Amino acid sequence: MQYSIREATSEDCKDIARMIMELASYEKMSDQVKITQEVLETDGFSNHPFFKCLIAEVPEEHKSKEGHSKVGYALYFYTYSTWKGRAVYMEDLYVMPEYRGKGLGCALMRRVAQIARQNQCARLQFTVLDWNKPSLDFYARQGAQDLTASEGWHILRFEGVALDTLAQGAPSS
Amino acid sequence: MQYSIREATSEDCKDIARMIMELASYEKMSDQVKITQEVLETDGFSNHPFFKCLIAEVPEEHKSKEGHSKVGYALYFYTYSTWKGRAVYMEDLYVMPEYRGKGLGCALMRRVAQIARQNQCARLQFTVLDWNKPSLDFYARQGAQDLTASEGWHILRFEGVALDTLAQGAPSS
Repeated sequence: MQYSIREATSEDCKDIARMIMELASYEKMSDQVKITQEVLETDGFSNHPFFKCLIAEVPEEHKSKEGHSKVGYALYFYTYSTWKGRAVYMEDLYVMPEYRGKGLGCALMRRVAQIARQNQCARLQFTVLDWNKPSLDFYARQGAQDLTASEGWHILRFEGVALDTLAQGAPSS
Repeated sequence: MQYSIREATSEDCKDIARMIMELASYEKMSDQVKITQEVLETDGFSNHPFFKCLIAEVPEEHKSKEGHSKVGYALYFYTYSTWKGRAVYMEDLYVMPEYRGKGLGCALMRRVAQIARQNQCARLQFTVLDWNKPSLDFYARQGAQDLTASEGWHILRFEGVALDTLAQGAPSS
């Protein structure tokens, strides 16, 4: 199938927000999604963008049943390893179900890898749920290491009240 | 003990590089460290900084056996959640052994949490090794969630040859 991969613009935020929700539903966590089109426009496309995004688009004649021609996305940002230097973190990689198995997911991920290399990044990282065997197997076949399985890294998080409490402790100095 | 927490400048990179190596040695992974003072200066203190850093400093009269007055650091950067928006990732939090138990680690982490809140970040995330029980317990007491334990998130990574192979695949469109 014919398709193109291109950088997202603020005009894509409606479709990015739609697909973020579709992906969260697949991950059975759609109740956690608080993001909106407007927040994406502000956070991704102002002077200080917090993320970058690629869009997979199909021609009009291949648009989806619901009329969508933007059918996949990869959202990423730059991070930093104090051991290896610059890195890219891929927050989301998504292709709508009816467009899977046609190479769009690989093409999106490959483009992110190319951008990483062009920017002297030593690593491309992302996270996958342990029950999502199809994805874990897919990435392993491509040569990805599972750092949690091999080295024992756990992801920890403060949010909500816990983050407020941490921030509001006694003055530090 | 008297100490101060302040933003790092490029003049701190020699000490940051030293403490990065000390932390990696504690994590039994110092062979993986490729970073240098010069790379930190370029990546952290040019027009497009890839990270931010806080330094914990003690007065001259409390300097370490080896003569160091910069005795701890927290290195962090902004990331993005497609569910919750802006976030901070704390890559490293370190205090030299002879200065532990005096509140410097808590003060560094609290300052990172304050910066997160000031910048409308919903989350503060970081990773910990599963065998590092003292740290896991410390963070749990402060209210951190272990996302790997509770939801099953695994960290995956492409680097080196695997990243090159991914980037060099057949043209995508």
